[in-house]
Amino acid sequence: MTVPTSITSGRALVDRAMRASAERLDPWTRRVVAYHLGWTDENGEPAAAGGKALRPALALLSARAAGASEETALPGAVAVEFVHAFSLLHDDIMDGDRTRRHRPAAWTVFGPSAAILGGDALMALSENLLLERRTRGAHWAARALTAATQRLIAGQALDIGFEQRDDVALDECLAMAADKTGALLACACSIGAMLAEGPARLVTHLTGFGAEMGLAFQLVDDLLGIWGSPDATGKPVLADLRARKKSLPVVYALNAGRPESRRLAALYAAPGPPSGDALREMARLVEAAGGRDWASAEADRRVAAAGRHLGDSGMDGAVAAEFRDIALFVTSRDH
Amino acid sequence: MTVPTSITSGRALVDRAMRASAERLDPWTRRVVAYHLGWTDENGEPAAAGGKALRPALALLSARAAGASEETALPGAVAVEFVHAFSLLHDDIMDGDRTRRHRPAAWTVFGPSAAILGGDALMALSENLLLERRTRGAHWAARALTAATQRLIAGQALDIGFEQRDDVALDECLAMAADKTGALLACACSIGAMLAEGPARLVTHLTGFGAEMGLAFQLVDDLLGIWGSPDATGKPVLADLRARKKSLPVVYALNAGRPESRRLAALYAAPGPPSGDALREMARLVEAAGGRDWASAEADRRVAAAGRHLGDSGMDGAVAAEFRDIALFVTSRDH
Repeated sequence: MTVPTSITSGRALVDRAMRASAERLDPWTRRVVAYHLGWTDENGEPAAAGGKALRPALALLSARAAGASEETALPGAVAVEFVHAFSLLHDDIMDGDRTRRHRPAAWTVFGPSAAILGGDALMALSENLLLERRTRGAHWAARALTAATQRLIAGQALDIGFEQRDDVALDECLAMAADKTGALLACACSIGAMLAEGPARLVTHLTGFGAEMGLAFQLVDDLLGIWGSPDATGKPVLADLRARKKSLPVVYALNAGRPESRRLAALYAAPGPPSGDALREMARLVEAAGGRDWASAEADRRVAAAGRHLGDSGMDGAVAAEFRDIALFVTSRDH
Repeated sequence: MTVPTSITSGRALVDRAMRASAERLDPWTRRVVAYHLGWTDENGEPAAAGGKALRPALALLSARAAGASEETALPGAVAVEFVHAFSLLHDDIMDGDRTRRHRPAAWTVFGPSAAILGGDALMALSENLLLERRTRGAHWAARALTAATQRLIAGQALDIGFEQRDDVALDECLAMAADKTGALLACACSIGAMLAEGPARLVTHLTGFGAEMGLAFQLVDDLLGIWGSPDATGKPVLADLRARKKSLPVVYALNAGRPESRRLAALYAAPGPPSGDALREMARLVEAAGGRDWASAEADRRVAAAGRHLGDSGMDGAVAAEFRDIALFVTSRDH
């Protein structure tokens, strides 16, 4: 599936704004941030290894949904991407993940202290980018971004807690994903409309669209974490099972009350790293207990729910079509 | 020297507000925060081990300087203390400090991940406390707090960088202290006046007062880090020299161009942990090169400059006297 032009068209605009904003960081944290964002390599030489900048694209689109220019959304687009980058910098340390977007994670290159401080600096800078504009819309956007950041952090806390529990219910796991993934995507989908001081109804439906799309995105990400190719995910094969992550398809399977559920629970509770055979058996058990089909169908249901928010929002049909294209793209199984 | 009533009188008010705000954290980070703030022990049992809550006291006083009630400042008082707590949580990890206020640092009790996330949650919550009030004063306060947080982070980055350099100039070291210690104290001294929407001139002078007092405070802290008793500092004797910290008296001595400066530089550059004899020699060299006298005199100059800001601010004389008492208290050498 090709990348929708809505994602690529604003990239240069956002990239320029992000680089200009990062100039405000002190040199020590800027170095970490430039590497983490894919602008430089380990030695500070220019590189081009950035992510797909999905959240900024959504932010720009949300200003257009409110009839404003993309530029209106620019501080919001940069701020949500910086919050996203902050969370990845810190999460990689906490989760012990050594690889991010096919490269060594920042904390493995610069050390944990630099990655902690780089994340802190990005969180503070993102707030500053919004608050320095003294409009009502900027205050609204800053409030929404802070609330989303709080949910992101609470979701990460829940996620870490799950790793130490063997009784995680599916509802809890969905609530965790709504916090950890849904909240910031919902903010990205609406922050441009807030900066443009668009109608509350539009902002509400954009937020709803983003929350549903975020859950669909997480479900697909969890499917790829088990059955995705390392080329596509940038992570080793069966990585999530290797780490015994309580991802959504796994938690569904564990709670399905089937013989496969009990066998999977036993493999998840076993000590030491799982063998290759165990990993393959775990993947088979998640599928046999219905985790794969459920996650796939649930993602489709969430995409449909996201689409209804677009329909109810009263926004221009062409902009709604662009939102829909992005939702289908990020929840497609083949990227 | 006894603790001024200005510090103690508002403590119950602030304590209640802090505890109520912390209830909004998810249970996992709340546990870390409650321990770090001295409300609980390692097992979650009630304790009473909090700090002196200097910043909240200054925030309450700054509302009174603007002719408003202490309650007006309350969200600001809680927010600055939460930002302070965030920075200590993260700094202790980065600096490898295992002790904080005579107790094991939070990261040694709950692990680095919990301390990272606890700090993140406090930073986000502190913004939220201000932004949820939609007044002009709250926006002003949130903007000032974010700017102070950015300087705090930049100061920590500079400080870490200093540890890897042997050519730190005194000006750089003063600039670092102004960022790391001065900025948040300056914000604490003015945030109540911002929330009260006081005159810009008052806010400017309160900010100036806090910045000067912050530097004086850091100078005294650095003196205590070398010559303070472990009972008073909660740190081992000669702790800053043991860690070869580039504190202000040390940097003065290193740059004094005297024979003692060269000998001190050699001891700072030597490999391995310094022996007891080396530690005592380092302390003697800092003093002989003039570092102790300079830091002491400079602290007095900063307190005097802080006092001039009070005089120029146009605030009520009784409130100015309370600010002055606090400045003298926190820069006294015997607590």
